[in-house]
Amino acid sequence: MTQDTTVCLAELDAHTYAEWLGSGSRTVVVPVGALEQHGPHLPMGTDAILSTAIAEQVATLVGAKVAQPISYGYKSQQKSGGGDHLVGTTSLDAATLVGLTRCLVSSLLEQGVRHVVFLNGHYENYQFLYEGVDLAVRDAGLGAEDEACVLLLSYWDYVSQETLDEVYQGSFPGWDVEHGGVLETALMLHLRPESVWLDRAVDHPPAELPRFDRLPVQPGRTPASGCLSAPRGANAAQGKLLFDQVTADLAADLTAELGSAQAD
Amino acid sequence: MTQDTTVCLAELDAHTYAEWLGSGSRTVVVPVGALEQHGPHLPMGTDAILSTAIAEQVATLVGAKVAQPISYGYKSQQKSGGGDHLVGTTSLDAATLVGLTRCLVSSLLEQGVRHVVFLNGHYENYQFLYEGVDLAVRDAGLGAEDEACVLLLSYWDYVSQETLDEVYQGSFPGWDVEHGGVLETALMLHLRPESVWLDRAVDHPPAELPRFDRLPVQPGRTPASGCLSAPRGANAAQGKLLFDQVTADLAADLTAELGSAQAD
Amino acid sequence: MTQDTTVCLAELDAHTYAEWLGSGSRTVVVPVGALEQHGPHLPMGTDAILSTAIAEQVATLVGAKVAQPISYGYKSQQKSGGGDHLVGTTSLDAATLVGLTRCLVSSLLEQGVRHVVFLNGHYENYQFLYEGVDLAVRDAGLGAEDEACVLLLSYWDYVSQETLDEVYQGSFPGWDVEHGGVLETALMLHLRPESVWLDRAVDHPPAELPRFDRLPVQPGRTPASGCLSAPRGANAAQGKLLFDQVTADLAADLTAELGSAQAD
Amino acid sequence: MTQDTTVCLAELDAHTYAEWLGSGSRTVVVPVGALEQHGPHLPMGTDAILSTAIAEQVATLVGAKVAQPISYGYKSQQKSGGGDHLVGTTSLDAATLVGLTRCLVSSLLEQGVRHVVFLNGHYENYQFLYEGVDLAVRDAGLGAEDEACVLLLSYWDYVSQETLDEVYQGSFPGWDVEHGGVLETALMLHLRPESVWLDRAVDHPPAELPRFDRLPVQPGRTPASGCLSAPRGANAAQGKLLFDQVTADLAADLTAELGSAQAD
Amino acid sequence: MTQDTTVCLAELDAHTYAEWLGSGSRTVVVPVGALEQHGPHLPMGTDAILSTAIAEQVATLVGAKVAQPISYGYKSQQKSGGGDHLVGTTSLDAATLVGLTRCLVSSLLEQGVRHVVFLNGHYENYQFLYEGVDLAVRDAGLGAEDEACVLLLSYWDYVSQETLDEVYQGSFPGWDVEHGGVLETALMLHLRPESVWLDRAVDHPPAELPRFDRLPVQPGRTPASGCLSAPRGANAAQGKLLFDQVTADLAADLTAELGSAQAD
Amino acid sequence: MTQDTTVCLAELDAHTYAEWLGSGSRTVVVPVGALEQHGPHLPMGTDAILSTAIAEQVATLVGAKVAQPISYGYKSQQKSGGGDHLVGTTSLDAATLVGLTRCLVSSLLEQGVRHVVFLNGHYENYQFLYEGVDLAVRDAGLGAEDEACVLLLSYWDYVSQETLDEVYQGSFPGWDVEHGGVLETALMLHLRPESVWLDRAVDHPPAELPRFDRLPVQPGRTPASGCLSAPRGANAAQGKLLFDQVTADLAADLTAELGSAQAD
Repeated sequence: MTQDTTVCLAELDAHTYAEWLGSGSRTVVVPVGALEQHGPHLPMGTDAILSTAIAEQVATLVGAKVAQPISYGYKSQQKSGGGDHLVGTTSLDAATLVGLTRCLVSSLLEQGVRHVVFLNGHYENYQFLYEGVDLAVRDAGLGAEDEACVLLLSYWDYVSQETLDEVYQGSFPGWDVEHGGVLETALMLHLRPESVWLDRAVDHPPAELPRFDRLPVQPGRTPASGCLSAPRGANAAQGKLLFDQVTADLAADLTAELGSAQAD
Repeated sequence: MTQDTTVCLAELDAHTYAEWLGSGSRTVVVPVGALEQHGPHLPMGTDAILSTAIAEQVATLVGAKVAQPISYGYKSQQKSGGGDHLVGTTSLDAATLVGLTRCLVSSLLEQGVRHVVFLNGHYENYQFLYEGVDLAVRDAGLGAEDEACVLLLSYWDYVSQETLDEVYQGSFPGWDVEHGGVLETALMLHLRPESVWLDRAVDHPPAELPRFDRLPVQPGRTPASGCLSAPRGANAAQGKLLFDQVTADLAADLTAELGSAQAD
Repeated sequence: MTQDTTVCLAELDAHTYAEWLGSGSRTVVVPVGALEQHGPHLPMGTDAILSTAIAEQVATLVGAKVAQPISYGYKSQQKSGGGDHLVGTTSLDAATLVGLTRCLVSSLLEQGVRHVVFLNGHYENYQFLYEGVDLAVRDAGLGAEDEACVLLLSYWDYVSQETLDEVYQGSFPGWDVEHGGVLETALMLHLRPESVWLDRAVDHPPAELPRFDRLPVQPGRTPASGCLSAPRGANAAQGKLLFDQVTADLAADLTAELGSAQAD
Repeated sequence: MTQDTTVCLAELDAHTYAEWLGSGSRTVVVPVGALEQHGPHLPMGTDAILSTAIAEQVATLVGAKVAQPISYGYKSQQKSGGGDHLVGTTSLDAATLVGLTRCLVSSLLEQGVRHVVFLNGHYENYQFLYEGVDLAVRDAGLGAEDEACVLLLSYWDYVSQETLDEVYQGSFPGWDVEHGGVLETALMLHLRPESVWLDRAVDHPPAELPRFDRLPVQPGRTPASGCLSAPRGANAAQGKLLFDQVTADLAADLTAELGSAQAD
Repeated sequence: MTQDTTVCLAELDAHTYAEWLGSGSRTVVVPVGALEQHGPHLPMGTDAILSTAIAEQVATLVGAKVAQPISYGYKSQQKSGGGDHLVGTTSLDAATLVGLTRCLVSSLLEQGVRHVVFLNGHYENYQFLYEGVDLAVRDAGLGAEDEACVLLLSYWDYVSQETLDEVYQGSFPGWDVEHGGVLETALMLHLRPESVWLDRAVDHPPAELPRFDRLPVQPGRTPASGCLSAPRGANAAQGKLLFDQVTADLAADLTAELGSAQAD
Repeated sequence: MTQDTTVCLAELDAHTYAEWLGSGSRTVVVPVGALEQHGPHLPMGTDAILSTAIAEQVATLVGAKVAQPISYGYKSQQKSGGGDHLVGTTSLDAATLVGLTRCLVSSLLEQGVRHVVFLNGHYENYQFLYEGVDLAVRDAGLGAEDEACVLLLSYWDYVSQETLDEVYQGSFPGWDVEHGGVLETALMLHLRPESVWLDRAVDHPPAELPRFDRLPVQPGRTPASGCLSAPRGANAAQGKLLFDQVTADLAADLTAELGSAQAD
């Protein structure tokens, strides 16, 4: 991929990037992931792999660029990721993730980026990204009427009801236990099949966790696989459906929300 | 209410409290709320009023005590509380709420409390309470095998499907837009009817907000009432049903989870 | 108490509050307390009970509103509160109390409050409240010539020499050892007699503590009661005298200092 | 002064210091001051000059060493130092002063110092020194029974009633307005007469400041001299009396409190 | 690349990784870079590209694993990176980079990693990585005698005098101005030739910058290219020489320092 | 020294200082040191003694003032100061040193100082001073075109090649191991001969330390003297040469860089 075709900031030289900023196409997407156990059948980098792939496709569709992902995420919680005690889960505390987000927004806005979009792929990150964005937006003195702004979303919020029905056939277990389950496995099978080891997948019913969080975590409540629901039946076709629908809808949303900025 | 009957820590003298701690009944519940606009028909203190009332009833059922509520919460977000720009919404940043939670856990554990339960009543607080608890638990060097532990929950996670069906009759709009809506209004009508002004309530369809968060907030996206769904049809009977079911289930959970501790 | 008569922000709906702010009456008082042992005869919430009661009376006199109290305070120090090691004393560290104060000032000023008054009832809090106020005032870019400002005081600084002579009859032990002593007991007897258990009070001479602080605290230096001076002779009439004089003088001061703001 | 006679850590080589630590004489005093306006007749470094001189004398009496002073202090407050807006007042915020104190305690304890004594000479510092000490003592896991400990004091707390009567002849204005007044001027005349310019001193009554703090500060409330009380009548004999009494009493206290440690 | 052959943690599943940890081969290398302008001929991700490539080769040689790189670095400084004001330079502040490092060390040590090696590729990062490591090592209570430890280095510190002479032929300008110059260009030509655009390179003498840092930066002191020295003459053969020598020496050092751990 | 002749801020009264600021001569130099072991022949305060002496001479030459030194520095690192584990080394963490620097810049700029110059004498401090300066400069909203600015330097960066050749006669070991070696010893012999104990100096070859940092430090790698190179041959004449050349060049640089400011 050449400088002319890549959407990745890290692959561009700074002079080419400066020209692009000057052309009015000034949206940068920051994928956010985690280094987190995802059971025996998915790689630990799954969250950043998926958010980056979605970000690159969306950026291609809307003429944006993609920054290096935030590769490490907030502590895995038992009810959404199995827990932070599991081997392979390598996490940031809240202050660090908030600071990281705040610095990236401030630094990107200062150099002339008009819109920053955080595309989250790790459930536990969201509120800390939000705080980082909020602090940076206040630091910059931005108001509702300013064109510069920051968007923040988790990609699964873009899965439509139609897609959900098609993929899960009525057995959707809820986003919170979709850790290492059908959604992520199907997307990986579509996007990175060489990094899925379905023969290692373990089948088990969705984890039944208490309605409360308990700390320290009781490890026995997390299934031995580390997954909160099994990837049973996940396939690449589902992954393609999910990927195509989510990226199309997200691109449409960005264009609708930031459109005039992109075009001027 | 006398020292013998109150469950409120602030109403006890320290010597009586020390005796109680020595008796083995060592669970303290900390209600968490916010000072946040809740539309024209509910008071700004609604979240702490509700979490405190639930905490007191649960504490009565299980023999626990209730600490002073955390009266101020994390910034209201547009998709769950209308936004932090609204007059009357008086908020803490993440570092402060994390620090507050961490200090309370540390201080309570140091004086001999065995179980601390955070009972949350403001959607946006959860992850910051979690971080505060996690840091304090690490500070204290607690492990999974220790009896001392901290529980964390939002009270609406205890609303059963049966109650939901009964209260909403199939029109449940989702917890995120349940801000100033049927749930909170019904509970307030049951618990504090003198603080509900139904004649001031505004009827409107649930807010339709984007799948992303945008900062700075576009104020026009929040309904003029400040509510994300209307309290239409809310009544005290629903409130009683919600209150009784949630407190009973929560008490049962605490007993099951912490029971031997309570009894020893 | 109705919306028309209450001075408590938490009891108002946001629309009514917004109207009030628009009317030019824009002073909000924040009472500050602690959850701290106060001997066997006073409840642990004494500091917030007293500062809130004083705040409500002053607010009534000057047309201000009262926010929810800061219910937890800075660490109790041996020379002014017996020490942070005592059971029942549940404390915040400096960073948290500073952050809490800073957030409240910023959030209140942003929504249109013109004057914020911190009314402190726990000796150890003062300097941390000051820092929080100073940081928020700098954040807001306020200057000496701006009408918006923040006041900060401890209520005992308003006890006049006449009142002191009348209440103590020449045996005033100093504010620092007035912890669980005559002042607080008398005020509680006037304001909340059902929360004073005089039969449990212990009589002892004022604590004689070193001129230095030592950390870790030597527990044996604090009287077993937890009080630094005894409440001997405290009665409700003294409490009424203290309350009436302090609230009258404080109200007069607020009017003199912030008067034109209140009136415009 | 040679290595054999100096009490100043900064003037010792590390090997000589290590030997001293090994001899059992392990108390280090840290003087604390400020860089703060002290009117036209005293140098801006007055607070550190005085606390260092007192520390050196006390250390000589009890066999302790003196570390480099903390030369910058917490923000000057109008009611005790005239205010932080005055030219020449160069201040630290709370987090920095707390951190500085915490680091010094931790670092000194780690290298084998048994007792650290903070000797404060700037009114506003106290609570922040206290927090830094408390955090470091917790970090170190010290308990009441440990020999290692930290003491904290302001030198004026050691002025006896007899000295006060002698120096002020009944006109003591209170420690809070003793900024640039008789106490500091007399001590400087005794210890550093070449740094006092009495001909530049301004005579005025003690400042009459409100019972509240207001921020931002109203500059007009601080006397033009920057002093809160005038140094009228201050002389070197008073300074000698103050210095000799305070250092003797402080040395006696240290010996009584830490004595066995010094002797072993 | 399969799970059997990859050294990248993000490409492994957690169960395979746990087995590897259990086998005694427990060194994880964390490459550190920056998103920083590197002139018109190198991509902005150069620092992480190089440190990651070196880390992967070293890990292959010694049987270690490589974590996701820290992709963003400390603020570019004018004397070593041209300055943080340049478009494309997207930076973290000190607290964030320290926090990131501290979290990674803590999290990796907790899950059983025995040795963490930070391999730095961005000059400005070093001291902040050091602080993060130091804090985490203290948190973990590690002592000199423990096998667990953390190493920290910048890869150019491994360039031997022989290599330097060979590559620069006597015209080595100093590491500080080696930003976008011969070293980085030669390494990129060897490792990622498709990401070097030599036809865009600008030839100019090494920047002559003052012996002081000035902030705010005077932009005119940085060459228009953004490079502090020109890549004149850089070629892939030099890059191969540098890469082979550095990785071999670094691998030898790791084996010598951590060898018994690797082998047990 | 009188007020008319001293360059030390701490020795001036605030009114005299205010006049000086008003005269347009508005550069303040802040020397930075450490309390750090420097072997058996130099005092622990060496770094601040040297940076202060240089600052005072430079200030005299250019008409600037000198603030109290930052007497404590960042943690000594094994490769540049022997390590933070050595007795006598009393250090600050990064956050504290950054905060201290930030506060001093902010406070000095607010009171009308136009140029702040940090003159560093402890190797490890530099990056943390830089961060503190950068944060304060951003807080103040300064831009490249503003006259107000901050300079930052380590004094050894001003040693010319000629001086180096003269002093070391070709055996210069590198600045990093110049800890307790010829440079510092010679300067001390020139400036403070009574604080150098050459008879206690230990002769040994320069320390050969790994190219990496390891934490926790392996103490055995630091020479027993604590010095990283021996002071063999150091004499006062070298010290005079170093001092005169460095102060002259630094004064010339300040005049060239800040000259118009000094003159107006």
